[in-house]
Amino acid sequence: MESKVVWKEGMSFDVHLDGHVFTIDADEAVGGKNQGPKPKGLTLSSLAGCTGMDVISILTKMRIPVQTLEVTARAELTEEHPKRFKKIITRYEVTGPDDISVERIQRAVVLSEERYCGVSATLKPSVEMLSEIVVNGVQVEA
Amino acid sequence: MESKVVWKEGMSFDVHLDGHVFTIDADEAVGGKNQGPKPKGLTLSSLAGCTGMDVISILTKMRIPVQTLEVTARAELTEEHPKRFKKIITRYEVTGPDDISVERIQRAVVLSEERYCGVSATLKPSVEMLSEIVVNGVQVEA
Repeated sequence: MESKVVWKEGMSFDVHLDGHVFTIDADEAVGGKNQGPKPKGLTLSSLAGCTGMDVISILTKMRIPVQTLEVTARAELTEEHPKRFKKIITRYEVTGPDDISVERIQRAVVLSEERYCGVSATLKPSVEMLSEIVVNGVQVEA
Repeated sequence: MESKVVWKEGMSFDVHLDGHVFTIDADEAVGGKNQGPKPKGLTLSSLAGCTGMDVISILTKMRIPVQTLEVTARAELTEEHPKRFKKIITRYEVTGPDDISVERIQRAVVLSEERYCGVSATLKPSVEMLSEIVVNGVQVEA
């Protein structure tokens, strides 16, 4: 598995990954032009996307009628440089019919975090990882 | 710092990061449509982009006349599930005039990896991290 970044100009780079290309950039404050997201947060996108795909895949297999799913990964960084990820809270927000199984959703999240998601498993030894689950607007135990 | 992924359909999600949006997806083999990169490799994009921006920023400040810069992060995963990142080799390929300072390029890479890049610092405790530097097509000590 690999990803390549190719410098364009200023602080912007083309990111090559899995045959797709997109642009990353820095803020104007540090010489960029904000033509794309900044690279650091892509670690959070990677985590949220990885576990999000696991969860939708598991729930689909369980025939759970998910209407919407959003996964947000929110990080606290260390104060000292280099500013590492210190703590990441992954919040799963699911909507579906009133009788959607909260238990199955909780199970899908646990399966992803403990068995399937390689990004989560890579970060765990060095980052405090917490989860939140919200079903139809109500926070439940994660 | 945060990133949100919003499920679209099948295995595709919109990734929201720093006010920008792009699509991730899975391969057709696992129910996706390959409409965007897969999430796991975004960790490598994050690392390559983070250190690539550091290096170009440092070299620009040093007035080193870089013509091209490519950074490739290549990973080996564990055999067992969840398939974590086990080893990542970051390869810096720089071109410039014949007399470009190899020493300054090596220095910029060390500064990024040890002092600036928070993604590298986050991965270090759990992943074996190696570097390669190639200047004008010739591999030099990293």
